[in-house]
This record gives sequence, C-alpha cells and structure tokens, in this order.
Amino acid sequence: MRNKLQIGILGATGMVGQRFIQLLENHPWFEITWLAASDRSSGKRYEDAAKWRLDTTCPERIAKMVISPADPAGAPKIIFAALDTDIARELEPRFAAAGCAVVSNSSAFRMHPNVPLVIPEVNADHLHLIEDQSWRRESGGYIVTNPNCSAIGLVMALKPIEERFGIEQIFVTTMQAVSGAGHPGVPSMDILGNVVPFIRNEEEKMQEETLKLLGQLQGDQIVPLAARMSAHCNRVAVEDGHTESVSIKLGNKLGRPVTREEMLAAWAEFQPLAGQDLPTAPKQPVEWIALEDRPQPRLDKNRGNGMAASVGRLRPCGLLDWKFTVLSHNTIRGAAGAAIVNAELLLSLGKLEPVAVAALRA
Amino acid sequence: MRNKLQIGILGATGMVGQRFIQLLENHPWFEITWLAASDRSSGKRYEDAAKWRLDTTCPERIAKMVISPADPAGAPKIIFAALDTDIARELEPRFAAAGCAVVSNSSAFRMHPNVPLVIPEVNADHLHLIEDQSWRRESGGYIVTNPNCSAIGLVMALKPIEERFGIEQIFVTTMQAVSGAGHPGVPSMDILGNVVPFIRNEEEKMQEETLKLLGQLQGDQIVPLAARMSAHCNRVAVEDGHTESVSIKLGNKLGRPVTREEMLAAWAEFQPLAGQDLPTAPKQPVEWIALEDRPQPRLDKNRGNGMAASVGRLRPCGLLDWKFTVLSHNTIRGAAGAAIVNAELLLSLGKLEPVAVAALRA
Amino acid sequence: MRNKLQIGILGATGMVGQRFIQLLENHPWFEITWLAASDRSSGKRYEDAAKWRLDTTCPERIAKMVISPADPAGAPKIIFAALDTDIARELEPRFAAAGCAVVSNSSAFRMHPNVPLVIPEVNADHLHLIEDQSWRRESGGYIVTNPNCSAIGLVMALKPIEERFGIEQIFVTTMQAVSGAGHPGVPSMDILGNVVPFIRNEEEKMQEETLKLLGQLQGDQIVPLAARMSAHCNRVAVEDGHTESVSIKLGNKLGRPVTREEMLAAWAEFQPLAGQDLPTAPKQPVEWIALEDRPQPRLDKNRGNGMAASVGRLRPCGLLDWKFTVLSHNTIRGAAGAAIVNAELLLSLGKLEPVAVAALRA
Amino acid sequence: MRNKLQIGILGATGMVGQRFIQLLENHPWFEITWLAASDRSSGKRYEDAAKWRLDTTCPERIAKMVISPADPAGAPKIIFAALDTDIARELEPRFAAAGCAVVSNSSAFRMHPNVPLVIPEVNADHLHLIEDQSWRRESGGYIVTNPNCSAIGLVMALKPIEERFGIEQIFVTTMQAVSGAGHPGVPSMDILGNVVPFIRNEEEKMQEETLKLLGQLQGDQIVPLAARMSAHCNRVAVEDGHTESVSIKLGNKLGRPVTREEMLAAWAEFQPLAGQDLPTAPKQPVEWIALEDRPQPRLDKNRGNGMAASVGRLRPCGLLDWKFTVLSHNTIRGAAGAAIVNAELLLSLGKLEPVAVAALRA
Repeated sequence: MRNKLQIGILGATGMVGQRFIQLLENHPWFEITWLAASDRSSGKRYEDAAKWRLDTTCPERIAKMVISPADPAGAPKIIFAALDTDIARELEPRFAAAGCAVVSNSSAFRMHPNVPLVIPEVNADHLHLIEDQSWRRESGGYIVTNPNCSAIGLVMALKPIEERFGIEQIFVTTMQAVSGAGHPGVPSMDILGNVVPFIRNEEEKMQEETLKLLGQLQGDQIVPLAARMSAHCNRVAVEDGHTESVSIKLGNKLGRPVTREEMLAAWAEFQPLAGQDLPTAPKQPVEWIALEDRPQPRLDKNRGNGMAASVGRLRPCGLLDWKFTVLSHNTIRGAAGAAIVNAELLLSLGKLEPVAVAALRA
Repeated sequence: MRNKLQIGILGATGMVGQRFIQLLENHPWFEITWLAASDRSSGKRYEDAAKWRLDTTCPERIAKMVISPADPAGAPKIIFAALDTDIARELEPRFAAAGCAVVSNSSAFRMHPNVPLVIPEVNADHLHLIEDQSWRRESGGYIVTNPNCSAIGLVMALKPIEERFGIEQIFVTTMQAVSGAGHPGVPSMDILGNVVPFIRNEEEKMQEETLKLLGQLQGDQIVPLAARMSAHCNRVAVEDGHTESVSIKLGNKLGRPVTREEMLAAWAEFQPLAGQDLPTAPKQPVEWIALEDRPQPRLDKNRGNGMAASVGRLRPCGLLDWKFTVLSHNTIRGAAGAAIVNAELLLSLGKLEPVAVAALRA
Repeated sequence: MRNKLQIGILGATGMVGQRFIQLLENHPWFEITWLAASDRSSGKRYEDAAKWRLDTTCPERIAKMVISPADPAGAPKIIFAALDTDIARELEPRFAAAGCAVVSNSSAFRMHPNVPLVIPEVNADHLHLIEDQSWRRESGGYIVTNPNCSAIGLVMALKPIEERFGIEQIFVTTMQAVSGAGHPGVPSMDILGNVVPFIRNEEEKMQEETLKLLGQLQGDQIVPLAARMSAHCNRVAVEDGHTESVSIKLGNKLGRPVTREEMLAAWAEFQPLAGQDLPTAPKQPVEWIALEDRPQPRLDKNRGNGMAASVGRLRPCGLLDWKFTVLSHNTIRGAAGAAIVNAELLLSLGKLEPVAVAALRA
Repeated sequence: MRNKLQIGILGATGMVGQRFIQLLENHPWFEITWLAASDRSSGKRYEDAAKWRLDTTCPERIAKMVISPADPAGAPKIIFAALDTDIARELEPRFAAAGCAVVSNSSAFRMHPNVPLVIPEVNADHLHLIEDQSWRRESGGYIVTNPNCSAIGLVMALKPIEERFGIEQIFVTTMQAVSGAGHPGVPSMDILGNVVPFIRNEEEKMQEETLKLLGQLQGDQIVPLAARMSAHCNRVAVEDGHTESVSIKLGNKLGRPVTREEMLAAWAEFQPLAGQDLPTAPKQPVEWIALEDRPQPRLDKNRGNGMAASVGRLRPCGLLDWKFTVLSHNTIRGAAGAAIVNAELLLSLGKLEPVAVAALRA
C-alpha cells in the first residue's frame, strides 16, 4: 500500500462514484482515502449512505469509511469528481482553487476554453491547457475533464481514421443505456419495451465535444475539427453500453479513395499509448469484431475491461463514404474509467506530483 | 354477413397471419372463409395448429376452422398472403395464375418491375402495373405487395415532404421491434438488455423499396425517386413498433429554404385518401406529436388504430436539412394492416370484382 | 351528456389518475367535471401538469381542463381518489366530511373497521359499513375503498372456491408489474434484467386485505376469513399485469375431496353480478384459460377489458390441495377500474343519489 | 500445462458447453483437449460451428480447435457432458461403457437409482453409487450428474437447515432466467414484458431432485428426504440467475422452535468442503445478504464467482415456519460450474485417476 497516491471521490454515492470505487479497488497507483457526497450523506458510513448498484460487492474497507463534507479542507490533492453539472459548476473550482487536481467526469467545464477535454489515446497534448488555468498558477490545482459517455466511443473510433484520412462529415445515431442517466434516472415505465428518442442536451454535447476532442492544440487554444456533424440520441432498454450507428465522409489526405483494408488497418494499428503502461488503458483501444452482427452491448461492452471501443459492420454508405457500428461501456470507458486513465496520464506526465507530493505516504 | 367478399389467408398461423385474423374480424367488406398454412398444419383446426400470440383472443369462429392445404383449388379469389419469402416465391404465382388477387406482405416480388409495391396514401397509381402481369391477362389474377415494415412508416412521413419540397438525400437509423421477425424469431438471449445492429437484408430492402415507393409511374414502369439513401438497421428489445431516426436533404421545389411551419403543414395536410372511406385507412396518416420526447413505441404505436405513422422531434440537421423521429406499428401498418388497406383500395378501384364476383354470397 | 353524474378525480395527474380519465371517457353514467392534484399542479391545464403515460391519447377535453386545488369547495359530490397514502389519510376524510362519496384506491383506510373494502363481485354486502361512518350521518359523505392491486385478482379467483368448498390455507407468490409503483416509481436500473424480491408493506397489505375481503359482515363489522395465509411479493420487468402463483388448502364444505371439474365449474359459474348491468363489470369475472402456459401478462391482462382475473394451470399441489396461476391488470382491475365499478355498484344501490343529486344536470 | 488432466466436452457448442469452455480456461487441474458436438458441427473449427454468446471472448486456442465426432474413440477419459436429454440418454452410456468418467449436466440419468446426483457441498457421499454401475465394473467408466438449475440453489440453502433442524415441508416459486433454456431457447416475443408460468417438466424435476439430493445413502441406495414439497416454476425476462421464493416447515431436531439467529448461523457456518481446496468451490457456499431487497439476479448472481447461493429476506411465514429468497447463477452454479466442481471432487477422492491416468501428460 505504500507509495500509492491518496485520492478522493466527490460524488461517491452515485452510479459513477460507485464505478470509481469499483475500478480503483486494487489500483496500483491510487488509493481511496476520502469520500464526499451531499450534505445528506456527510457523516454517515458509506454503506449506510449509498445504495450500491454494481454486480460486484462494495469493498469492505470502503463500506466502513465515513463520508466527508464536500469541502477541500481535509481532502487529498487528487480528486475524482462525479457530480451533477450544477453542483460541479460550483464545487470543482473550489477544489481546484485549493490546489487539487480535479479529474472530472462532469460536463460543467468540458467546453471551457482553458479546460482540457481529454481521452489519453486521442488528444493527450490538450492537457497543455491546464497551464493556463488561474488556479494552476495560484495554487497548483486545475480541472481536467473527460467527455460525455456518448462521445467517447465514437471519438476513439474516429481518431485513427481522422489521422490517416481526414474526416469531413459525421452522422451518428445513438442507442444509449439507462445507466448513463444514473440512479434513479430513467423510470422503468419509460423504457421497458420502449425507445425514448430524446436525451436532454445530449445531441448538443455529443456534437461539440466530438469536434473539440478531434481538434488541434494551437498555441493556447483548441481549434475544433472542421467537420460537420449530426447526432440523433435515443435511450433504449439496455443496462450498460452505448451502441452507435455511424456514417462518415472522409477527407482527402490520401488523395484517393480509402479501402476497407485501410480502414481496418487504421483501427488495428491505433496504439497511441504503446509503451506508456497506463494501468487502466486497454491494450487495443479500438477492437474490430469481424462477426456480421456485432458489436452488441450485452456481449461486447466489457472488452478491454470495459475500456475499449468495439467497432463492427464496416460497409459502404449510400450517402457518405463508410458506415459502421461502435460500442463502448458508458459507465466505465464513458465515465469513471475515462477519468481514471486521465489521472494515470497526468501522473505519467508529472502533472500530479506537484499537487500530490504532500499526500504521499512515506 | 351477406355481401361481404370472401377472402383467404395464406400463412395464417404465423404472427402476420394472426394479425390478419385480428384485423379482419368484423371487417365491413371482407370475410375470412379459408385459412392455409404449411403441410404440417393442414387438416388441423386453427386453434390446434397456431400458437396465438396476440393480446386479444382468437375469434371463436376462426379457432374452429380447419386449415386447408396451400393450394388454389377451393380457395377464394382474394388472398392475403403472409408467407416466408422462399415459399411466397413459389406459391404466390400459383394463386395469381389461378385467378386470385394475391395481396401479399412478402418481400418476394416487391421489386419485380411488373408488381406494384403500394401504400394507398403514397402511390395508389402504381397499381396500374397489375395490368401488365401475364396472370392478369390470362386468368384475371395478379400480385400486389406492400412494403417492408421498416420502410412503410418512413415513406409515409417522407411522401408529403417529397411532394411539396422534393427530397434529395435520406439518412435513417432504425430501432426495430422483435415482432418483425415473427415467432420464434429473435431468441430472448439475443435481445434482452441488448441491441443487435444487424437484420439480414433489411438495409437493402429498406433502401430500394423506399425509392420505388416514392417513384413515378411512367408508362408501364416505375422510375424510382432519384434520391440517395443510407439505412442503418438495428433490433432492440421492443415488442411492437419500429422507431427511426431520420435526416433528410430537401429538393428545391420551392426555390428557397423550407420552414419548420411548412414541414409541419405538409404532414398535417397530408390527406390523400380523403373522401374514399377505406375502412382501415387512418384519418390522419401522419400524426405530428409536439412533445419533446416522442414518438415512443410503447405509447404511440397504436395511433390511428396502428395504421398511422407518428412523427416528432423535427429539428435542423447539422449535415442535411432536417431531422426527426418516425414511428409506426410494424405488424399492423407494417404488415397485415398494410395489405388490408391495399385490398380496400383495390376494391374501391374495381379491381377485386372481376376476380371475386363468383365468391360473393347471394 | 345530460343526466350523467358529475365526478371529480383527486390525484388526477398520476398513473392511476390517468387510468381514471382513460376509463371514464365515454362512461355512460359518469362525467369528469373536476380534476385536482398537488399544489404544484393546481391552476395549470391538465396537459401542462401531467406527463401522460398511457398508450391512448389524453381526451382533448380533459387536456384543456384546469386543475383545481384539492379542496372540497367547488368539487362535485362523487370523488375518485388516487392519492398517495399519506395524503389520502389527510384529504379523504375532508372530502367525506364535506358530503362527498369518496371512492378511493388508496390504502389509507382500507383496514379501518368502518370502511368497506369492496370488490363488487366478492363482497358487495360489506358496503353496509358506510352507514356507520360518522361523516355519513353528518353530511351524507363516506369513504369506500378497493383493494391493493396484488390482492384483487387473487381474491376474485378465491371467492367462488371459498363459497363452494371453503379455504383454509393460502400460499401466494407474486410477480408484479412496475406500473403498480406509479411514475417515476421503479428505476429502470433496478428492474431491467432483474427481479426485486421486495415491495415495501406489500405482503402485509395483501394478507390482511385478502382475509377482510373474504370475510363475513356480521352486524356492523367484518369478521375476516379464518384462513392462514403467506405471501411472497416480487417485482418483475413487466409493464402491466400482476402474475401470481397460488396454492390453496380447501375447507371441507363438501365433506369430500373436490375434483378438478368442480374447481373449474366454480370459476365458470361465478356470475355474482348477473343482471345488474354495471357498465365496467366484466361478463366473466374469472376467466379460465385452458392452455398449458397461461395466463401471461402480455397476452391476457386485457381480458374483460382489463377487468377480469385470468386463471390457468390448475393442478394438484404437493403440500396443499390445488395450485394455479392467476393474473389481473394491476392499474385497471387493480386500481382505477376497481374504483369505477365500486362507484357503479354504489349508484345501483342508491348510495350515490343522496350525495350527488344536487350535481345532476337538469 | 504439464500434469493437467485432459478433458473433453460433449455438446460443446451450446450455451452450457460455452460455459464449460469459459470456466475451464486456466483451470489448474483440467485442460480441454477434445470438443464434440452434433454431426452438423463435426469437422468444423469451433469458431465456425458455435455462435459464442458469452460476454467474455472465446479463448483463441479453443476457437481454432476442430470439433470431433461424438464418439468415445479418440476422446479423453474425462468427459463433461452438456447434451439435450434425448441425446444424453443415448450417448452418455456409450462413453461410460468405453471407460470414461462422464460428468453430466443432463437430466437423462439424474433419477436413475445407480447414478449419483451430487452437489459436493451437500451430498458428496452419494458418489458411492458409481461403484454399482455396471460400466464401472467393466471398463472403469461411470456417470455422475449434477442437478437441474432450479434445484441447486434451493438445495444449497436447505442443506444446512435440514442438517441442524430438519425440514418437513418445502414451498418454492421460481422466477427463472432465459439462459436456462439455451439458445435459441425462449423466443423474445414470449418473454419481453412478460412472465411465462410454465416450464415443461421443471416442477417435477425440481421436486424429485431436491428430495434425492437431501436424501440419505443407505447401503447401495439413496433414500429421499421424507419431506413434502410443492414447486411453481415461472420464466421471467432475466438473462442469468434464478430467483426463488421459498417457505419451509422445519423438523423438530432441536425439540423447540428455531430462532432467526440459528437460521442465519446455519447458513454462515455451512463450510462442508473446508480444507479440501476444490478450485471451483466457493469459500462461502451460502451467502446471506442482509439488505432488505436482496438477493437480486442482476446484482448477486456472480457471488462466489457464480458458484454461491445467495439468501436474503428471512422472515416468519404465515403458513409454515420461515420464508426467504434464494438466488443462484443458473448456467454457472446451475450447470457447467456444478459439473466442474463435481469433477474436482471426484479427482480429490481418487475417482478420476483410474480412468484418466493414461491421459496424463508425462
């Protein structure tokens, strides 16, 4: 246990907070030493405040931990944040101002010009933005965010394509799992035997985040990818795993049409973190599944321990160039796991030590 | 009961056959007098051969009827056909050759150049094609088809748009109910908590049927709509009702951009069968639902007694012009009901009497 | 419309309130003229206050009605109440004290010694209890209740058995639909692909209500059936329709074992309301389904327009005498429909006129 | 890999066959060297013959293995059998006659007087029966079976109760997952939003197997437990995990009523395999969950790596003594895992060496 960095979780009782706990149990670099939640939960033992909803049991040590107030005083310097947007907007800056590295899953600051929105395999260089955050200069603290659960799998599948061939147009229809809405979230009366063709703000977030993630760091700012995009977002009766039907028009980087083999090779050879040994990063970030009816959420969401994006059904599109299906686990790769691998990247880049060195156990 | 036309059902024991029976019970113009199914069922009482899967009870009179061999001898002259494609390909011509009006839900002959693929509200004039069928000239018989369950709701929503503004590009992602695959159809292990992003041949059928349905009758042939189209077809855990996310690029018939109000008016004023009094045709073929999260299969599939297409969520598309959601009941409007309203149209046009007059009860 | 009795609905925006509206549209005796809900909804149009969740559209007239405060002033004299227990405990007596006939679906007063808990087919004579209510004597008002959604189907199936043969022991395991918990009710994360073996207070309510319903009116009080009973209540991923596995030990009224034919005859011949013409009462209150794998909620919940209890799978029990499956629609027969048929019974017994005559339209 | 025993799988392509492969990958004692399936699959590579339906990927080595004919010639001497009953009835004796230890999940021989029906934690001594099998005497081969998926969790929960207090009556209602019926198994049209209150032969199997499992080995035969039992078996829309509502009447071994604490202690202290180190046996065979609404299949089926039975909701029963809920994973503890732990027990008892020694790698 020695030498692990102490971390805290803001919003520890919700669905994403529970995933943080599940995924950080036995993490080689981080150790949970602080849990915070709403005032209602503060002072209670975790097991009394949280209704654990995962299919592994809550670690005994965590179950007995007492929940702290959501205040930087007494918190460790590395904070995983799983807060609702409104609360995140207020609390995350307070922790950053107090010198914490806030690794956030919330949407509150994702589109802020100084806040990096990062997928390590896609745009690690965007982390440079933290140096422009005023908190960083004043206290060493900062905010780093990961994307919306619907954007992350799509962007992982698009990145190697964009790099090699360029992307000019993106069409995507999502079929999203209910866990993305937390608990209680979607009422069962609304989704059993049903499809809900609307998720508030989801299409807008998905569109703008995708273009920022695929954008270029130029000086101190991100220039979004100059592609046009349209998203249709739907909720379906699936517990975990967002499935997306995607069509894309490629750019002309090659100066000629792209073959199916080249598309598959772009995915197969996409190994941007090779050699970095981030513990939570999947070996194969984009997994191609050759079977004609895959990926499927029930069967494929756990590939790469829930951290890979699965792609399948690549075929020509009657309108754009290619169409395919992409799937990713919405509360692992799309939420808690995304933040954890962001923190691992920050540590490997030396961005956590300044904030956390005091927290290191001797 | 007098003066009703006698009709028969080919493939009476399957899911679509059951819908025929349900929808024709108490039909003012037609009376079921003959049921046929596979050799295995022939000679049995209907209740012993069919596993009734609808949530209304099987009419007592039908339950006691004995299933006939699938042979034109002894069959009435109006036949509703709900056969698997391979069997339809063999049997439907035999009934047409024997002088029957075969009103078919099968895909076997939908794309045949001489076979009309018809939605009464959309392309009633395509029925002219039957006059070119050799059976028609020789025996009076013919084959008329209705489209695939995934195409019909889409085409109903597109027709008034195409008429007023033109359509150049069509993007659609379907989320299709399991009843479309019949019984046993989709194994529960495949769809509970899951999405299957593949339905064999569905995308191809949906694309080519849509363009034929929206095409023009020129002389003796149909010129398909000159639009480009791309379909993504998915199966979801819904019992009945296909939901579709649609984006379209309009034509330039107006010479200027089309407003939201004009789009809504096109749907609201779409009344192509007004005054015809076809018993199964819905008063409002395309129902606009103003609520932000609709249509939904569980709540809206039965609009217009399952014969209307519901549309909602009209909004600008980042790639094409407009996007929206369309929903229709896949085994009523998308199968049995589609064939019944086709037969009603045929009767109103005088195309059934020549074949059926001998079958009229005195 | 003339001569219909004016009725009001307390708790009109919830799931059961919506069912009241759906079932009372076109009712021959009653006309909705007043809707009340929580303070938050009061003053709004119904369509703006309620999220309509049924698969028929909300009647246009109702959608435009303005919601009244939940106060007897201005309310009609016949009130259907669909309130949460705590609120019912406070509000229902206020309406009864103001001279209203409160026909309630709430559990608040079901077990009160002076309040009849009634199923018209089972224990219409229990209505006598209202004469002992102080409100009745003072203002003419009273409270009548219908049972819990899990008890009603069971009791309907048991009543004819109890009458003919006696019942000494009852064992029941329920598999209950999510609509019984209202909206939002059961979170989708809790029930998709799952069974929840607990519904708060449900087993207790089911046990005590069953014995009161099957009890005898003796003088001014109900003597519960002297049977022993054990209920296991589970929630399953079903939208509507409670399925129950039942085992019973019969009494010895016949002095000999009861045959299967006698059991079936008891159900078939159970016609306690014959000749009374209550509009919402089903012709066959207990429907026997001979198929080996029925009843099933998806296929059988709507029998008798959702007002019948379906029974099937009668077979000897290894512990008690007989076992079978019973099914009933939990928000029709188990809630709104139960109250409506109670009101119809009250009207036919002359118990509504004293309270409602002033409300009659000329 | 050296010194592992070579095993074969009969019926390797089905759902239980796939579970065998999944659970035996990395098994410390056994190594799959032979796969057999129907004639249709024989000669194909496993990946081409099987539609893999588990949410982990099929091991690469297995995917490339060629499927053998279902014939003892060339098969290893330890065979896990996952065959349909009719085929098992024919094939299993042929393998036993050829000297194989057939560790079977089929129901074909479970109730045969000479065939042990075994759960290692419950009735390991019943294995003595194999010595009376004629195959054993002639070739060394034999058949050992594990119980039906619905019986196994129940029996594990009952065994410690029976041992300490005795059991006289057993009531159980099951809510069984669809995976128990294999693939394609239950049609999705039958189970979405539904409950099916019938599983062919399931109640009979569950009843007779439970009493045999809890029975006593007396000389060369099993005397079933002298308890009365009644089972209601239902299918629900759950992928994996059978949930059961149980009521029991205890015996009088203590001469006084049994307390709740004694019941809980019986489960907590049930450690019949302590010290035996069977790799697949769970440390805590019966896991008590104190939460009021558990166990639930989605959350608890994987306890003890899917090999534990979970119990919860212990409370007094209005008819018998106690009632509770039990849950177990139907294709792990209820099928493939049950057979594997049976084989581990056989090995630890020295019953595999005589048949398998020739198969040992040097």
